[in-house]
Amino acid sequence: MSSRRSFIQKSAAFGAASVVLPNYALGQTFGKATNRANEKLHIGIIGVGLRGTNHLENALKREDVVVTAIADIDPNRIAIAQKIMAEAGAKSPAVFGKNALDYKNLLDLKTVDAVIIATPWLWHTRMSVDAMKAGKFAGVEVSAANTMEECWDLVNTHEETGTHLMLLENVNYRRDVMAVLNMVKEGVFGEMLHYRCGYQHDLRHVKFNDGKQPYGGGVEFGEKAISEAKWRTQHSVSRNADVYPTHGLGPIAAMANINRGNRFVSMSSHATKAVGLNKYIVDKGGADHPNAKVRFKQGDIITSTLETAMGETIIITHDCNSPRPYSLGFRVQGANGLWEKDGDRIYIEGQSEPHRWDSSKA
Amino acid sequence: MSSRRSFIQKSAAFGAASVVLPNYALGQTFGKATNRANEKLHIGIIGVGLRGTNHLENALKREDVVVTAIADIDPNRIAIAQKIMAEAGAKSPAVFGKNALDYKNLLDLKTVDAVIIATPWLWHTRMSVDAMKAGKFAGVEVSAANTMEECWDLVNTHEETGTHLMLLENVNYRRDVMAVLNMVKEGVFGEMLHYRCGYQHDLRHVKFNDGKQPYGGGVEFGEKAISEAKWRTQHSVSRNADVYPTHGLGPIAAMANINRGNRFVSMSSHATKAVGLNKYIVDKGGADHPNAKVRFKQGDIITSTLETAMGETIIITHDCNSPRPYSLGFRVQGANGLWEKDGDRIYIEGQSEPHRWDSSKA
Repeated sequence: MSSRRSFIQKSAAFGAASVVLPNYALGQTFGKATNRANEKLHIGIIGVGLRGTNHLENALKREDVVVTAIADIDPNRIAIAQKIMAEAGAKSPAVFGKNALDYKNLLDLKTVDAVIIATPWLWHTRMSVDAMKAGKFAGVEVSAANTMEECWDLVNTHEETGTHLMLLENVNYRRDVMAVLNMVKEGVFGEMLHYRCGYQHDLRHVKFNDGKQPYGGGVEFGEKAISEAKWRTQHSVSRNADVYPTHGLGPIAAMANINRGNRFVSMSSHATKAVGLNKYIVDKGGADHPNAKVRFKQGDIITSTLETAMGETIIITHDCNSPRPYSLGFRVQGANGLWEKDGDRIYIEGQSEPHRWDSSKA
Repeated sequence: MSSRRSFIQKSAAFGAASVVLPNYALGQTFGKATNRANEKLHIGIIGVGLRGTNHLENALKREDVVVTAIADIDPNRIAIAQKIMAEAGAKSPAVFGKNALDYKNLLDLKTVDAVIIATPWLWHTRMSVDAMKAGKFAGVEVSAANTMEECWDLVNTHEETGTHLMLLENVNYRRDVMAVLNMVKEGVFGEMLHYRCGYQHDLRHVKFNDGKQPYGGGVEFGEKAISEAKWRTQHSVSRNADVYPTHGLGPIAAMANINRGNRFVSMSSHATKAVGLNKYIVDKGGADHPNAKVRFKQGDIITSTLETAMGETIIITHDCNSPRPYSLGFRVQGANGLWEKDGDRIYIEGQSEPHRWDSSKA
């Protein structure tokens, strides 16, 4: 074990920057390490809700990974995870669920090399920090940190411990995103100028349910709800912010070489009024439902514009409280052309139909 | 004449707001007035460049309009306009072109009820003010004003004189834009939240030419160029700004009831670096061309985000120095659904295919 971990640490020659931003190369390092040693990676999964069991199912498909431990405070989810593992023919895992801090006992196991953290947002940083301090590699679900202080906690703990953290931003691995990343690196778009991205996803039936099914069926959140509605929705009550930027910004940060020669230097954000969540409660649950009195701080659509040290701009959109088709709204634009996902088009000078000028046109 | 003008003034019951923002209703008023009086409207055209002769040709097609005078400092353009009129069988117009201020003599004509102003940007406000002071109705090409002071000049002159100004923002009359405006007014999108718009148009061959043809063929601008490159390009040298917002903002202002119960309350703007125009000069004219030394202040892509008193946000994009497909990038979004032009889609809750949630999805 220790020799493999040592190899991973040596080959993972990334600075602190890689801790807080998605790093597509880190995944390759894990792969190389396990192939070379011809050993299996022993992982624990902290949080086996819907997302955690999705990770579990993927891990069970791999021949180079063994799931040795799971943690969750919900005994129903533990039972579901155990059933999934038994049906896959996997060895029964160590279980930690006595209380909210029992995951620390999972981190003490010598049979765990690395953990996947798929818990409510406010647990991400503290669990990641604890994992690194316990000498475990950690893969943490987005968005990993909720405050500037938490961002620095992740960086500082990585630098203190030398242990690595990977932000599990899955959109970085979308096939079109990887193709465009490669085009950016190859210079197809020329000198880069502008990016757009966001999380434009109607989450109303995720933020509210009936306490029985995870998605929809009612307008409960918090204690009377289950799954994400139990904890995620409160962020829309308490914070007027883009609480979930990485599905968009993760891929763009990789394309823009953020913290690899470039960095963010400024940001301005604007929020619309908050209409959608209250409207959903009233429409589905009636004006007399107790939740109809809840005042949501989070504006329905939040627009943040960032400037980079290299002179690019990035627009990030958070748009999750309204009916709309799913879209991450990508645009990747350089001096030679652009990729736009909303318009579903790539335009490269000299390789695409040129725009024809019409003097009577706008 | 005076009775018709009096009727127009009475029926055009708009406040000062209509002066600085596109007013789709004003066009209807002109129409009504001329139909009712069964008289022809006598107009002068100030500026008969490419855009002005386009207006001239449209005016000549109307049976309720007579073009009585034209003004331009370029004798070649006067000759072209005269030829167009002769070929259309129109009566020969009075001509004003002795110097840059000869348009004032056109404004003194009793045979002119209204003028169309299609001149370089820095002339728009002063000509509009002079027209209103001369008691003429004025239609002025976009963007009409270049500074806050000029905006107030237009408002104050309208209020002092009682004469009307119409901003000739043609995009307000695009069929899809008018359809969506009607949908907004009918409440199809629900309570409005967010708008996007812009001028995303590769203008490099408009900003540079060879001094012989109006579009492209060289990398000259200013004195060595003709048509728009003669004057328009200098704005990209002198100003880092969205110099041309109305193609996008005109329609959106109408939808958002700006100055009709709503107003803009804040704006933040971010510019990328300036790459495209210099690159175009170097690519087409060589690194040794004198214009390769010109430093362009205008960032290639400029993003402005506005907040309104009603709690909506509006993103305006200016993107005219890079190769790209033409797009005004519209989005019109409310609590019930949205219209997006880049994605070429309308989505209305209950009438469109709902988004299906997949827990393994981003």
